[in-house]
Amino acid sequence: MNKTVLAQINTIAGDITYNSKIIIESIKKAKEQNADLIIFPELALMGYPFGDIFIRHKSIIKRQLKALEEITSKTDGITALVGFVEPTYDSEKKPFYNSVAVMQNGKIINIARKRLLPNYSEFNDYRYFEPSKETPKIFELNGERYGILVCEDSFNDKSFFKDKCIYKTDPVAELMEQKPDILINCSCSPSRCGKEYIKNGLFSSIAKKYKVNYIYVNQAGYADNLCFDGTSRIYNTKGELTLRAKSFEEDFVITDNLHGEINSLPVGADKKFELVDFKSDYENDLDRTYKSIIFGIREYFKKNGFKKAVLGLSGGLDSSICAVLLSDALGKENVWGISMPSRITSNESKNDAKLLAENLGINFFEIPLADAIDPLKAMLNFAFTNIETEKFEKSTTIENLQARLRATLLWSISNEHKQMLPIATSDKSEAYIGYATVNGDMSGGFAPIADVTKTKLFALGHFFNKNRMQKNAIPQAILEKPPGAELKINPKTGKTVCAEEENMPYEFLDEIIWNVETKGFGFEELMKHKFYYEKNNTLSTEQKTEWINKFYWKSKCAVYKWHIIPPSVVVDVKSINSVEYRQPIISKVN
Amino acid sequence: MNKTVLAQINTIAGDITYNSKIIIESIKKAKEQNADLIIFPELALMGYPFGDIFIRHKSIIKRQLKALEEITSKTDGITALVGFVEPTYDSEKKPFYNSVAVMQNGKIINIARKRLLPNYSEFNDYRYFEPSKETPKIFELNGERYGILVCEDSFNDKSFFKDKCIYKTDPVAELMEQKPDILINCSCSPSRCGKEYIKNGLFSSIAKKYKVNYIYVNQAGYADNLCFDGTSRIYNTKGELTLRAKSFEEDFVITDNLHGEINSLPVGADKKFELVDFKSDYENDLDRTYKSIIFGIREYFKKNGFKKAVLGLSGGLDSSICAVLLSDALGKENVWGISMPSRITSNESKNDAKLLAENLGINFFEIPLADAIDPLKAMLNFAFTNIETEKFEKSTTIENLQARLRATLLWSISNEHKQMLPIATSDKSEAYIGYATVNGDMSGGFAPIADVTKTKLFALGHFFNKNRMQKNAIPQAILEKPPGAELKINPKTGKTVCAEEENMPYEFLDEIIWNVETKGFGFEELMKHKFYYEKNNTLSTEQKTEWINKFYWKSKCAVYKWHIIPPSVVVDVKSINSVEYRQPIISKVN
Repeated sequence: MNKTVLAQINTIAGDITYNSKIIIESIKKAKEQNADLIIFPELALMGYPFGDIFIRHKSIIKRQLKALEEITSKTDGITALVGFVEPTYDSEKKPFYNSVAVMQNGKIINIARKRLLPNYSEFNDYRYFEPSKETPKIFELNGERYGILVCEDSFNDKSFFKDKCIYKTDPVAELMEQKPDILINCSCSPSRCGKEYIKNGLFSSIAKKYKVNYIYVNQAGYADNLCFDGTSRIYNTKGELTLRAKSFEEDFVITDNLHGEINSLPVGADKKFELVDFKSDYENDLDRTYKSIIFGIREYFKKNGFKKAVLGLSGGLDSSICAVLLSDALGKENVWGISMPSRITSNESKNDAKLLAENLGINFFEIPLADAIDPLKAMLNFAFTNIETEKFEKSTTIENLQARLRATLLWSISNEHKQMLPIATSDKSEAYIGYATVNGDMSGGFAPIADVTKTKLFALGHFFNKNRMQKNAIPQAILEKPPGAELKINPKTGKTVCAEEENMPYEFLDEIIWNVETKGFGFEELMKHKFYYEKNNTLSTEQKTEWINKFYWKSKCAVYKWHIIPPSVVVDVKSINSVEYRQPIISKVN
Repeated sequence: MNKTVLAQINTIAGDITYNSKIIIESIKKAKEQNADLIIFPELALMGYPFGDIFIRHKSIIKRQLKALEEITSKTDGITALVGFVEPTYDSEKKPFYNSVAVMQNGKIINIARKRLLPNYSEFNDYRYFEPSKETPKIFELNGERYGILVCEDSFNDKSFFKDKCIYKTDPVAELMEQKPDILINCSCSPSRCGKEYIKNGLFSSIAKKYKVNYIYVNQAGYADNLCFDGTSRIYNTKGELTLRAKSFEEDFVITDNLHGEINSLPVGADKKFELVDFKSDYENDLDRTYKSIIFGIREYFKKNGFKKAVLGLSGGLDSSICAVLLSDALGKENVWGISMPSRITSNESKNDAKLLAENLGINFFEIPLADAIDPLKAMLNFAFTNIETEKFEKSTTIENLQARLRATLLWSISNEHKQMLPIATSDKSEAYIGYATVNGDMSGGFAPIADVTKTKLFALGHFFNKNRMQKNAIPQAILEKPPGAELKINPKTGKTVCAEEENMPYEFLDEIIWNVETKGFGFEELMKHKFYYEKNNTLSTEQKTEWINKFYWKSKCAVYKWHIIPPSVVVDVKSINSVEYRQPIISKVN
């Protein structure tokens, strides 16, 4: 059998010099180890996702083709499969194919062109590429016959997807007519909740159905809010997994016989996404979510030249989870937690923030806000005395002022440090209903948990306390108290107002979000749906209607904020991240 | 001839109740005036642009089809053409067509389906729609034969576009085989620099070539950063313009004989886009830019429930232009200009800001910053004494702090007023190189000039002073002084640092931007290009190289900021607005 390398590399879109350097180094290493064949991911030379960059900057394509020539010249004694953007040179077609070049002894001996072009969620292939109408020719190497699939080409198997198939063509079936011994799937496939179970089932079932070996090579990396988990692998002709590369990191796997180490997956990632309810789904997704965000933070910081992060620590859930993630991703010495208590911040919150920082071993400082709030209020008071306003000290004004002042301090601190980014700590549940402050907690150079709902964050907190090397780093009180921004006092109770008083129970809100995103529910379906919350609480139809209406109304007003969420990591099945979903600010969805 | 209505309506994406109400009212009005035929724009019932809303919220489609039935029932005695999203009900196809229904006496008698699906710049039709392979059947009304085109279907005429055609099919040629007397083009066509000249030439040439009457109905409105200018019209069989509806507003035009009032265009909008250089192009685009932004502001505010705007007035160009635009769009009584001088703000700037506000008659207040800067500096000083930083009072920290404090005050003021939005005043030249502060001048609920370069802003200023009813509203000094944020002092000169000292001449920068966007130039082409600046100044190759490299380096670091630009109006040929261009933050384009 051919000695084969799965080159699970990590590229940068448009950075042809960098990508070709990695590719050439990998080929060199493969040759040193006497490999016959080395397989790179889809679009390895261009890097993916690339947005519109080579449409607007045409010189990128020229540089890419020149680099492809150079790579080809390095393939003496080896066969290399490299994904690239191939001009069609045909004015009746779109300008490019999404192709994989087969290079051998200094020549391109074969080209496989992607046939199925996904154009949904985070995918926009058809915007850039011409779908190839031809089945790629198989190529032979030392008597073994190989057929090439480019990512989506493998995702339309009729026995597996049944009536869920979205294309007419089944490129696998057509490719198998040429009777290859081995299928190679070059991919750029982002990690999403529930996707690993589908991939494993699909690839295994194709291998078994056609009695063919199946090699899947996926890139590792992060860009544009998407995490690519790598997890390249091989199945034998019985559909059994015989090798699996690492998840959420680069890898270089060499095998003599299509067998090798089977690296472990994030815990639960191989489980079926049940589509029953939000809780049963995310329980199996906690470790994958954790690894995805950690990888995203690391990659974003490294590739943009940052090393350190500064975040506000309120003693609440969101900032605590962010602190753990940042600490694990960047190292505790690179994280600055700043407590910025106002006059109404409770001693408990201050202590919880401090205790968390001590547990994690991150840098910790306290800057009380009052010294700046008072002069600002005086300035505004002066202004409001002159400007006819509705009513000075409308609660939101002072609430937001506190949040914005905190962000201003964080940005100032990051200004003073080299390679430091301030962190936006707001979460997905808040984003949906706009319960986060522009220029406040939703402002930062990175937003680690912008696609994680509140109930999942609680579950993550417990998961961290149980499973991280250091147990119980998050003080128990943080996981027990009701979430709230501690921005104002309820005059009736004398206590700070918690978020659920102002909105609705997070458990209820998150189940709305889950049903809207995962099942496409509208108002009527939501009203009919039996919520978890209803199992343990009496809920009148009036209250249910009010909450669901509140969700739609608040979401409508929040769309503006969705458009300015800082860079984050998409982890859920669906998200409101602009990489995959765009709702115009002027629009109505219910 | 049939009495015909061009219903240039203004819709809201997904708001089926609202859109169908407008459509039904227009049909009623047309019937009252004994019209035979009423034509609505493309996708009139769904509203456009719709982003991904009906993909995620499936109930929108149900509501739309129900509304279509209701509209159909209102067509006794009249024929109505209504654009809508039509399910294909065919699992082998994409789920929808982009269609126009022909309704008559309570029945749908014909459906025209869009054939050419644009998928570039701001268009993503192929993401949602199946391209129809069939030429729509013509329909007859009182002996006149009508053929229907859906927007892009008319944009592939081989005699007009020659080798610039991007599709194989020419739907006009195929439709003409059925020998219609009149072509109807239902469109949703955004206004962009240079586009009116192309549309007029194309429609006229089609009418003349085929000796056919040509009716174009375009929507008026604004959403998702795009302005739709309406400007519906009719050409006779000689290609002569015989009727033109209003630009940048709704209209309801009725004609007995395909002739009528020819409303005026924005000055220069009918001129050819020369593609020679940036200056000759934007000179003819000033009035259209002005009308486009005014319309965008009005629509954004109205459709989102806002009435008033608050902006910082620095006495500089950007905020002055914004003040004029807001005042003209919302009424001077609805604009609050706030001067927020720091200790280094010159008296000239303070006076210029005040004078501008007086000239415009907008509300004006001054809030000196020093009272808040000092306690903040003290707080930060305390923090920085404890946190090991590079060097306290690094100039950018204090510069940015001023900008952020100003934005914080504006947001606070808007919090206190009902229906008030704070305004981001940063411009396109600054956005390109990241010379705008996150949470500072680039923060706001709307960014009127985010797609206008600095040199065009100067030209707009002169244009306003000459052509607005009130002459010379912008103090001459504002149009003469070099742009600069007045955020720091140059210790050598003792004066505030101007922007061009820190970056490069705006004339040079804007010509880079124009060439990159319009001509797709890369580094090498830019180096070879003879810049305007070089005609009047000696420029060494070293200096030129340095500036072009600076452009690429600064742009790369600015991409993060492009992703969080507030809602704006796209006015240039191309923009960095996410509605049409996406560059991943991790990527390289040169």
